[in-house]
Amino acid sequence: MQRTLALQTLEKIGQEVTLQGWVDTIRDHGKLVFIELRDRSGKVQIVGDKKLGKLSSEDVIEVIGKVSQRPEQMINPDMPTGTIEVQASNSSLLNECKELPFPINTDGSQLDEELKLKYRYLDLRRERLQKTIRLRSKLIEEFRKTLFSEDFVEIETPMLTKSTKEGARDFVVPSRFNPGKFYALPQSPQQYKQLLMTAGFERYFQIARCIRDEDLRADRGFEFTQLDLEMSFTKREDVMEMVEKATKTAVLAVGGKLKDQQFPVFTYQQAMDKFGADKFDLRTEEEKSSGVLAFAWVIDFPFFKKVNREDVAEVRDGKSGWTFTHNPFSIPKDEFVQDHLDGKNVENILTTQYDLVCNGYEAGGGSIRAHDPKILAKTFEIMGYSEYEIEKSVGHMLEAFKLGTPPHGGIALGLDRLVMLLAKQTSIKEGIAFPMTSTGRTAVMDAPSPITEEQMKELGIQIRSMKQTTAKSVFEQICSYLDSEKVEYKKFEHKPVFTSEEAATIRGTSLESGAKALVCLADRKPVMIVISAANKLDIKAFKQIYGFKDVAMADIDTLFKVTGLQPGAVPPFGSLFEIPTYMDEGLSRLETINFNAGSNTQSIQIKSKDYIEVEKPDVSNFVK
Amino acid sequence: MQRTLALQTLEKIGQEVTLQGWVDTIRDHGKLVFIELRDRSGKVQIVGDKKLGKLSSEDVIEVIGKVSQRPEQMINPDMPTGTIEVQASNSSLLNECKELPFPINTDGSQLDEELKLKYRYLDLRRERLQKTIRLRSKLIEEFRKTLFSEDFVEIETPMLTKSTKEGARDFVVPSRFNPGKFYALPQSPQQYKQLLMTAGFERYFQIARCIRDEDLRADRGFEFTQLDLEMSFTKREDVMEMVEKATKTAVLAVGGKLKDQQFPVFTYQQAMDKFGADKFDLRTEEEKSSGVLAFAWVIDFPFFKKVNREDVAEVRDGKSGWTFTHNPFSIPKDEFVQDHLDGKNVENILTTQYDLVCNGYEAGGGSIRAHDPKILAKTFEIMGYSEYEIEKSVGHMLEAFKLGTPPHGGIALGLDRLVMLLAKQTSIKEGIAFPMTSTGRTAVMDAPSPITEEQMKELGIQIRSMKQTTAKSVFEQICSYLDSEKVEYKKFEHKPVFTSEEAATIRGTSLESGAKALVCLADRKPVMIVISAANKLDIKAFKQIYGFKDVAMADIDTLFKVTGLQPGAVPPFGSLFEIPTYMDEGLSRLETINFNAGSNTQSIQIKSKDYIEVEKPDVSNFVK
Repeated sequence: MQRTLALQTLEKIGQEVTLQGWVDTIRDHGKLVFIELRDRSGKVQIVGDKKLGKLSSEDVIEVIGKVSQRPEQMINPDMPTGTIEVQASNSSLLNECKELPFPINTDGSQLDEELKLKYRYLDLRRERLQKTIRLRSKLIEEFRKTLFSEDFVEIETPMLTKSTKEGARDFVVPSRFNPGKFYALPQSPQQYKQLLMTAGFERYFQIARCIRDEDLRADRGFEFTQLDLEMSFTKREDVMEMVEKATKTAVLAVGGKLKDQQFPVFTYQQAMDKFGADKFDLRTEEEKSSGVLAFAWVIDFPFFKKVNREDVAEVRDGKSGWTFTHNPFSIPKDEFVQDHLDGKNVENILTTQYDLVCNGYEAGGGSIRAHDPKILAKTFEIMGYSEYEIEKSVGHMLEAFKLGTPPHGGIALGLDRLVMLLAKQTSIKEGIAFPMTSTGRTAVMDAPSPITEEQMKELGIQIRSMKQTTAKSVFEQICSYLDSEKVEYKKFEHKPVFTSEEAATIRGTSLESGAKALVCLADRKPVMIVISAANKLDIKAFKQIYGFKDVAMADIDTLFKVTGLQPGAVPPFGSLFEIPTYMDEGLSRLETINFNAGSNTQSIQIKSKDYIEVEKPDVSNFVK
Repeated sequence: MQRTLALQTLEKIGQEVTLQGWVDTIRDHGKLVFIELRDRSGKVQIVGDKKLGKLSSEDVIEVIGKVSQRPEQMINPDMPTGTIEVQASNSSLLNECKELPFPINTDGSQLDEELKLKYRYLDLRRERLQKTIRLRSKLIEEFRKTLFSEDFVEIETPMLTKSTKEGARDFVVPSRFNPGKFYALPQSPQQYKQLLMTAGFERYFQIARCIRDEDLRADRGFEFTQLDLEMSFTKREDVMEMVEKATKTAVLAVGGKLKDQQFPVFTYQQAMDKFGADKFDLRTEEEKSSGVLAFAWVIDFPFFKKVNREDVAEVRDGKSGWTFTHNPFSIPKDEFVQDHLDGKNVENILTTQYDLVCNGYEAGGGSIRAHDPKILAKTFEIMGYSEYEIEKSVGHMLEAFKLGTPPHGGIALGLDRLVMLLAKQTSIKEGIAFPMTSTGRTAVMDAPSPITEEQMKELGIQIRSMKQTTAKSVFEQICSYLDSEKVEYKKFEHKPVFTSEEAATIRGTSLESGAKALVCLADRKPVMIVISAANKLDIKAFKQIYGFKDVAMADIDTLFKVTGLQPGAVPPFGSLFEIPTYMDEGLSRLETINFNAGSNTQSIQIKSKDYIEVEKPDVSNFVK
């Protein structure tokens, strides 16, 4: 039977239809049950008998029924299908919905971010997010339409590419074929798109995924998407005109409102004089509340600036004390090219850079590029690069520019922010299907996470030793976890100890109360076994209880690979290392337990019942 | 002045035009010079005086001239603009082209791959590659058009995601925020697209970049692009119909020819009986030469198969001896669901999988998914996963399936291969703008490459110690490099030596001829200084000669970070570690030199002139 969408019922009055979707709301009046069924087109009211009453919110159902006009007094003018309802003759449950972790019939903006992103697929059911994600799809397609009509080609550039020295930090990817060497994920397709101009494509674009290891902010993740384009045989005004046209068309097509039909142009100097900044908001208060987008161009930026000694990247790039303001691949404005080549009046050189601003944000930026290798090399020379360093950094670009590269220029527009502005949201994350948490964790899935020793071996890498990164953080992790769980505990700092006896003495506690954390391989998987320092593990008993075929103590190397710690420093928290924890019952009967926590100079004392509550070990009897 | 494209000149006879493009060919007849100018639209003949004669092939030029009809006998019927020519009145050189590393007016398929990919931007100028890359852009856009018209939403899923245990090896990305932990790059958006169905988007697609660390073959890199789609409330036949429609429309739109207007459907059993394989070529010999595409569907595959004990991934997934044939997220065909839930007759269970084959290749594959958490969990149980392992692997999916996930299914079509077939090429790389080399190196740019110690520290990783990966390979690298350079050398294997004196004794050579490779930090950058073992470095002289402010011996840690080697094992090849090499002139005057090569048990003897020729050190006097 052919499916009818909720909104299509309007055209099927008097007919029998099959609907499929989610129970949006349910009102059980005993004999009569009213359901609002939701699908991708919207909602429609279902009326049925008490069989429907067994359903719950967000169940996935199929309903067969007849579409009929609602009685006059039942019409809901706020609902597109408010004039009709479907009299259910049959219904079936396609998939059940258990209790939701949070309600989704609200705005949801107050929810804790980690929780919301863990269940992002629920959050995405909200009307607000459905609209925003669909708007994004349409906006991008509208940009595409304009560009295809202007003879552009869409070309994908590599994700595994070279580590560049400019801009933000790279994410790197270890190579199995070249152990100890790394690819970089692209911060932007800048160099590849210029090489596509060398290749003669003349008009390129890409909806480009860019990845930067930047310090996270509440509204920014590591990944972003930009409309990246490049044109050959072009001047600054040509690119600006093309981008303005594509932007206006796309914005209007998704129902956006523009303040100016022609984007005003300010020089950098004018912008600074007038607004005190090169990003500014041209909207009136009234326009702000009506959701207008106020675009403007800023041009004639200085090419170079004095290095800010507090910015690591600037210090690195600006060895001479000068660094670029926007993009080292740009060409200066015509009248400054000679000064540039002479390295004279550096502070006065203006670049061909153009920035597109919108509602106080930077919406994009681009420039005409230096296609003459002498000019590009000189840019790096002005920044203090030696010949050797220039060759290392951009030698491949200089070579390409000697082999028939046309004059060219382009732009990159940030699509995430544009979607945010069009959807009248305040966080970029609202327009991304699966954004990261503010701590860099992925939505829904549990990443980043450890990889296996085998993988690391193939890649020629290993985790840095305890001394370098882990020791402090294990201790801190435990303390802050116990703090967050509101568990009382006592910290000891002491001289290094190497045996349980020494530890007991220095802590002034009994040997028995020392919780010894043994990392073992049980059927080759690491597990943590926690017993009293006064006892010995009964491996046979342990194997029998848990049905393992083979249990052995991990050697020092394995211990280190699993925990990043040295023997004697491992705390009894397998969960910290993502391995299961087993605890001997004898230890659980003590009032308090003591253990080394990440180093042999730091110990923690905690009530054993609190320990069991926070770590939830599997408790049984397996000591001699 | 407005630019006219080569092809547009046909409509401008008698008019003055401005052309911009590349010198495709040049014929210098002294007084008259003929140039074929090439731009993105094609080529046009320019006629001018000897000023044009100074130009060379692939120079980028601008020409102003008048379009005129060619005399009858000069008409070139093989050229779209063969009836006209442009009489140049003015021309200018926009960018010069030096000598090309290889000719580009040929097919180029015989060229060495590394060379071709180093200059990929030149290779891309060939007509064949221009057409293929443009075809790819159009093909993908045609798929999009159909899908948008069918109410699909295009949604981007994350590039930094979770390491999965299924399928090929993951590429991993170390996390700076969580040192020692890793993201994985997506092998496919499988789980995210299913979660988008949970989220209620109902019809999703994405032109998805997928990255797998698979063993490379001549025609395969690590990255590939797939048309990834998923639909809710759908049956197998609905997805097949949708995909068939979109494929046919796109293929025809780019000029492809189809063997069958309706794709034939074979069961797996029929395919095996008839073709002995589930990928087969339905074309006749005649159809093969005429470039026809013969698509077909294969359905009714077994869900499980016996584990192939030689396949590491299968052994890992199939703990019980059974593993999945295609996709563990699939649902069995209706009539096998009960057997599946009971874990009975596992060998007979058929899955809803459908594969699309074309000309003997797999063009894509998909299935209806298990939206019932019990079925998905059971699939992993049949493969021998414990409850704990199921929870670890797919717990987040099982949870989503309990929160209102509709029945759904989808497919992934490999676009690279489809482009290859449509462009009548035999390698997938021909349809990718910047493919990798067969050794996993990036086109044009020099990656993978080392990263800095600082970066590794932030990421909580380090290069594995010499013993684990590097020792052998340094020695092997040197030998195979010397072999490839046809340089004669002598190898020694000996007991471990710890001083230059011991080394000289055990080799039976003079102390003087020992080449000591010192790694130093010169103005904080690592450099290699090679002197005779009988001499001492004169740091002051070295600083003076090369203008360094500060030169100091690297400590053991730095030495290891730069070379991966221990003191005494470092060979005098800075190039191996991508640092510059300086050699003392005294050493260069000896007939032969000896050095330890990667370990203290292996030495090499080589003529010093050969060493200088292959390593090209900077030679000067800086010893005491």
